[in-house]
Amino acid sequence: MSLYSASVPQITKMLQNLDRWLASAEENAKKRSFDPNVLLASRLAPDQYPLVRQVQAACDAAKFAAARLSGKAPPAHPDTEATMDELHARIRAVVEYLGTFTAADFEGAEARDVVLPFMPGKGMKGEDYLTEMALPNFYFHVNMAYAILRHNGVPLGKVDYIGSMKMHDM
Amino acid sequence: MSLYSASVPQITKMLQNLDRWLASAEENAKKRSFDPNVLLASRLAPDQYPLVRQVQAACDAAKFAAARLSGKAPPAHPDTEATMDELHARIRAVVEYLGTFTAADFEGAEARDVVLPFMPGKGMKGEDYLTEMALPNFYFHVNMAYAILRHNGVPLGKVDYIGSMKMHDM
Repeated sequence: MSLYSASVPQITKMLQNLDRWLASAEENAKKRSFDPNVLLASRLAPDQYPLVRQVQAACDAAKFAAARLSGKAPPAHPDTEATMDELHARIRAVVEYLGTFTAADFEGAEARDVVLPFMPGKGMKGEDYLTEMALPNFYFHVNMAYAILRHNGVPLGKVDYIGSMKMHDM
Repeated sequence: MSLYSASVPQITKMLQNLDRWLASAEENAKKRSFDPNVLLASRLAPDQYPLVRQVQAACDAAKFAAARLSGKAPPAHPDTEATMDELHARIRAVVEYLGTFTAADFEGAEARDVVLPFMPGKGMKGEDYLTEMALPNFYFHVNMAYAILRHNGVPLGKVDYIGSMKMHDM
């Protein structure tokens, strides 16, 4: 399995799933007659990120995973979103950025030294970075966004979470 | 990257992290003078699994990932846990089961046909099963357990979630 196929297509799909959960939240808010943007400040605990920051962090985790494993500089996305529309645009920008990568960009990524800004003087092997940090961190923020929406009554289930899967007849 | 190194060590570590979160919840319950076992019935939404079922599902997701990718029959674990002690034992049993696998058991797993009981007549390529189903599903239940504990005031943070990482000096 290449590090590209273990990351970019799946991370892209999960961001697209997240985008749909937000659309479901907007639809649900409309039915329940409240402004969907109030959900952006909702959080599960007072010392945990609210929805808006979970979505921004999921986008950053996705962007940094691809950039660090391929040795490219990621685009900057200031955390200024204040509406569902702006969150959709942020997700769209990262999905487009991920779409610029090919498997060839990830050649040698397994052994590439990945340096994290919050761990000065330390590095991780690309394969370990993907498995131990990039994927669990990405899934963390995607799942916290999902959990906040579920906690607020948005009708979502496992099928919405998993999304499409590549299957064949047996 | 082999499918073994992309799954078993990381899934094992996340289960051990989960085990520690439960221990933190018990310690916190003691400080706040309530029975930690009441947390087992806590949930984020009335139509979502409570903590006990999230932990059981995380254990099952871990066990099935290793079993299906290696073509082995997994052990049965009836969902009868009713205490934190029993949840620790369930996690321990699955961590031990994962410890019986080696990279050799996963040879050819990329292309292995994985059949899921809830999708009759369909199969997934091992690599797609790991990336699109096994890992996201495992992370889902681990994260929902984490979210339920955080929502109940258990003092946990990203360092507890990520756990140890393989790093080297630069």
